[in-house]
Amino acid sequence: MELEFLGTGAGVPARNRNVASVALKLLDERNEIWLFDAGEGTQQQILRTAIKPRKITKIFITHLHGDHIFGLPGLLSSRSFQGGNSTLTIYGPRGIEEYVRTSLRISESHLTYKLKFVNLPQSGVIFEDKTFKVVTARVDHRIPAYGFRVVEKDHPGELLVAKLKAMDIPSGPIYGQLKAGKTVTLPDGRVLDGKDFVGPAQKGRIVTIIGDTRRTENCVRLAKNADVLVHESTFADDDRPMAHQYYHTTSAEAAEIAKQAHVKELLLTHISARYIGRGIAHLQKQARRIFANTKVVNDFDIVNVPFDKNNFKK
Amino acid sequence: MELEFLGTGAGVPARNRNVASVALKLLDERNEIWLFDAGEGTQQQILRTAIKPRKITKIFITHLHGDHIFGLPGLLSSRSFQGGNSTLTIYGPRGIEEYVRTSLRISESHLTYKLKFVNLPQSGVIFEDKTFKVVTARVDHRIPAYGFRVVEKDHPGELLVAKLKAMDIPSGPIYGQLKAGKTVTLPDGRVLDGKDFVGPAQKGRIVTIIGDTRRTENCVRLAKNADVLVHESTFADDDRPMAHQYYHTTSAEAAEIAKQAHVKELLLTHISARYIGRGIAHLQKQARRIFANTKVVNDFDIVNVPFDKNNFKK
Repeated sequence: MELEFLGTGAGVPARNRNVASVALKLLDERNEIWLFDAGEGTQQQILRTAIKPRKITKIFITHLHGDHIFGLPGLLSSRSFQGGNSTLTIYGPRGIEEYVRTSLRISESHLTYKLKFVNLPQSGVIFEDKTFKVVTARVDHRIPAYGFRVVEKDHPGELLVAKLKAMDIPSGPIYGQLKAGKTVTLPDGRVLDGKDFVGPAQKGRIVTIIGDTRRTENCVRLAKNADVLVHESTFADDDRPMAHQYYHTTSAEAAEIAKQAHVKELLLTHISARYIGRGIAHLQKQARRIFANTKVVNDFDIVNVPFDKNNFKK
Repeated sequence: MELEFLGTGAGVPARNRNVASVALKLLDERNEIWLFDAGEGTQQQILRTAIKPRKITKIFITHLHGDHIFGLPGLLSSRSFQGGNSTLTIYGPRGIEEYVRTSLRISESHLTYKLKFVNLPQSGVIFEDKTFKVVTARVDHRIPAYGFRVVEKDHPGELLVAKLKAMDIPSGPIYGQLKAGKTVTLPDGRVLDGKDFVGPAQKGRIVTIIGDTRRTENCVRLAKNADVLVHESTFADDDRPMAHQYYHTTSAEAAEIAKQAHVKELLLTHISARYIGRGIAHLQKQARRIFANTKVVNDFDIVNVPFDKNNFKK
């Protein structure tokens, strides 16, 4: 599980920061990539990475401002051109389907795969299967805007094969039964309890991604105990009144959210083009005073989301 | 008058060729820039040039395929963000207005300037003022597609001030009358004929820009005697059947058009990503065998359109 930042700027593209997009790479977990927002030029940014558009199966849209959606039609078309054939689902605010379908219709772009749309509810679970769950909730921007909490389900413990071999128990259907926690009686009369032969479960990871918003309580709720919180930080804390006026967050406010939510790591993105060089260092420093494990990310940064070694469940 | 190529690729962006856009820079002539097509990422390409979006006053769209229009909404929004306030007119096939207005409405992008749309006719003059005229005509693509012929009007000859000074004629309203070609009687009785005091007129330049099309007679008509012909050349001539199938032109076909139309220079663009390095050299060589003054352009190439020194009108 990795995050790869494709655009870390705000509003309009700058030479060193493209407009918003971040990929959650679930290659080991699902052989899929999930994208959060797709500002103009996202497909061009992808050309400079190892990401294959056909592996993108879900795109989550935080809100409908152009710097978060204008890259969608081109990306969808190129995914088709490059032979993508699996269904792609777009989760976004009402309006995203009209925008995408109008763009594809007028440009006479015919996709080789099925496109599905899910309108975001005010809050709740928007996707769930055996291994992952995604929860959304409204945040506070000028137009309807949403944050996303991606929850990996716990990994069951592994079967302790070496222990079984040492007891001269040959592999076979019994292994599956023990892994499922069942009690098994062997032909020689020995009784084995599955829970003695399964290692500790590994707690799943949580990644929270929050786009444009003012600081609001739902940010803390969505980020609760997250392994990584990706949060907008359009402004440095010196510009807090401006952040409030334009419905954005400062770096210190994002750090306060990270602290309240007890996350492990805070990644700041959606940085206004007014901050470069020492301005960025200053913005980051203001956040670190409140939440030490904070980093301002740049385009093409790749951040690994590790399992917490101390977070085994018995 | 300069052409600056912002995207010279075909269909999908490649690392070294972005999708279609070319700027006709009329800075000396009108302090304006006219854009032809705006594929996704055009505004990002512009960031790497000296072009100021607020100086773009007209955008001509050859056809509605995504690689020619998906950069429009972002470019229009950024022009607004950067303080553009002059009216911008988009000339394009029916459908372009719905695409742009839907994109701006759903993204809640509010422009600081007036946006006008002109639906292209089958053929004819679509713009004319004192210094320029633009003519369009249908070409032959899978969907309605158009070429553009930009005609600079002739520059009147300059007043020969040195000659007047040598005859001890002081500057004043007389100079204007002479420049207008009138006959003037001086207080001392001398009679001056304006045409003796005005240099030769300079013939205006012609730039023809033709987007996606099969080779067709209208390409020749639009390009007749042009100083520069910008023409698509998606394929090399070895791939002529494929070019025909996909409604595109080969480099040799574009060269035949240039030769028939007696243009001065041929610039080949909209090059398929399949051609790189020696493939490009080969594609260019096939054209040069037919029309010597041919060049395959690259992203960020700037080509000056000079006055023809031999083309004075008396």
